[in-house]
Amino acid sequence: MTEPDVEGLQRRLAEFAAARAWQPYHTPKNLAAALSVEAAELLEIFQWLTPEEAARVMDEPDSAHRVADEVADVLAYLLQFCGVLGVDPLRALSEKIDRNEIRFPVGRPPGRARHPDRHSSE
Amino acid sequence: MTEPDVEGLQRRLAEFAAARAWQPYHTPKNLAAALSVEAAELLEIFQWLTPEEAARVMDEPDSAHRVADEVADVLAYLLQFCGVLGVDPLRALSEKIDRNEIRFPVGRPPGRARHPDRHSSE
Amino acid sequence: MTEPDVEGLQRRLAEFAAARAWQPYHTPKNLAAALSVEAAELLEIFQWLTPEEAARVMDEPDSAHRVADEVADVLAYLLQFCGVLGVDPLRALSEKIDRNEIRFPVGRPPGRARHPDRHSSE
Amino acid sequence: MTEPDVEGLQRRLAEFAAARAWQPYHTPKNLAAALSVEAAELLEIFQWLTPEEAARVMDEPDSAHRVADEVADVLAYLLQFCGVLGVDPLRALSEKIDRNEIRFPVGRPPGRARHPDRHSSE
Repeated sequence: MTEPDVEGLQRRLAEFAAARAWQPYHTPKNLAAALSVEAAELLEIFQWLTPEEAARVMDEPDSAHRVADEVADVLAYLLQFCGVLGVDPLRALSEKIDRNEIRFPVGRPPGRARHPDRHSSE
Repeated sequence: MTEPDVEGLQRRLAEFAAARAWQPYHTPKNLAAALSVEAAELLEIFQWLTPEEAARVMDEPDSAHRVADEVADVLAYLLQFCGVLGVDPLRALSEKIDRNEIRFPVGRPPGRARHPDRHSSE
Repeated sequence: MTEPDVEGLQRRLAEFAAARAWQPYHTPKNLAAALSVEAAELLEIFQWLTPEEAARVMDEPDSAHRVADEVADVLAYLLQFCGVLGVDPLRALSEKIDRNEIRFPVGRPPGRARHPDRHSSE
Repeated sequence: MTEPDVEGLQRRLAEFAAARAWQPYHTPKNLAAALSVEAAELLEIFQWLTPEEAARVMDEPDSAHRVADEVADVLAYLLQFCGVLGVDPLRALSEKIDRNEIRFPVGRPPGRARHPDRHSSE
């Protein structure tokens, strides 16, 4: 059995939707909404957990399966969104990391090296 | 230049976070929250657009760049979340498609073949 | 029967949580996550609907009930979040409308009077 | 100065949107998306904070203002959503608390009295 890759998954998702005539629903706006809903469902698993409980979420088969299932849903809608709009998600991320390496240089003095998003509104 | 792949991107993201000592922030719960926030930022681009305007979002360089940037952020947090918890996102999606092919057979009579999530709470 | 008001609802929610010993879960961060999750569940009702179908969502008792139920959940977590942090949500909104009346004056020339959030990242 | 109330705020928001000709954007689906986006922006403030840091978020004027501002945005879109669809948010919440008092009786034996949403998928 070969490892699944992003392109192959995108093709399977497109064929799946086409075979069920779901493409009219799969507009960019609807897929962005669905992606956001699935990401919230992944967060829901963690919302009442302490950091310690959250770190053990893969130890129980039930919650491990639930996490993998929501990860799959998030990735499915992300890949379908990208497919519909012609965005290459791996390239987009690769270029973003390139930019972030310049934007957040290593070795800043302490106190400025905190996570960038903590200061995103400043 | 070779095409970026998921494993290579996960490695770059892990090195990036380690070099800046961001791992303490990157708990599963925080990463799930960040993923959800980034997915909402992608949705924000579309929230006031008509379906027609949304379909043209890649035609303008500014909005095209913004879309690619948010896609990168969503994928970055999804891959980091999976890295921290040891989830293989491509395998998770591949297995989910396998299950959905059984759950939503092709060729149902019309009226029942609508998108499953429209009836998810029923 | 008297109309419920925000203060009375906040009191009932606080008593409900206290009676079940749920306060330890109701940290500001957890409540913000829960609010976000419930808002996504409200969006889920609409994600595959056309604008026309969405406008008729209150015509059917089932979907009307579902909408009211998710509205209740969003408001419940918003009020509990505000209760825990001492934010007055009605005053916060009143002051925000005051600010927006200055920020978005009536009678701008067409083309600039579009919805502000369409340009929020520019 | 009188205290703002929900009905008065709803009226101000409707007049504000009408004066700027924003009603065409304010469909139920768009408002549900915008509500979800604003809830995520509130969560964003907390995403990298420890529970201890999150509890002190109102101590600093900057972050206190940011929290109140996002609370106002969430409430604004919730009230506008309810206005467009004719949902009474206070009544919806009051009735939901009624139902929850039956669904989650006080004094369950320990171990079953945990927060309901921790078991929402079971």
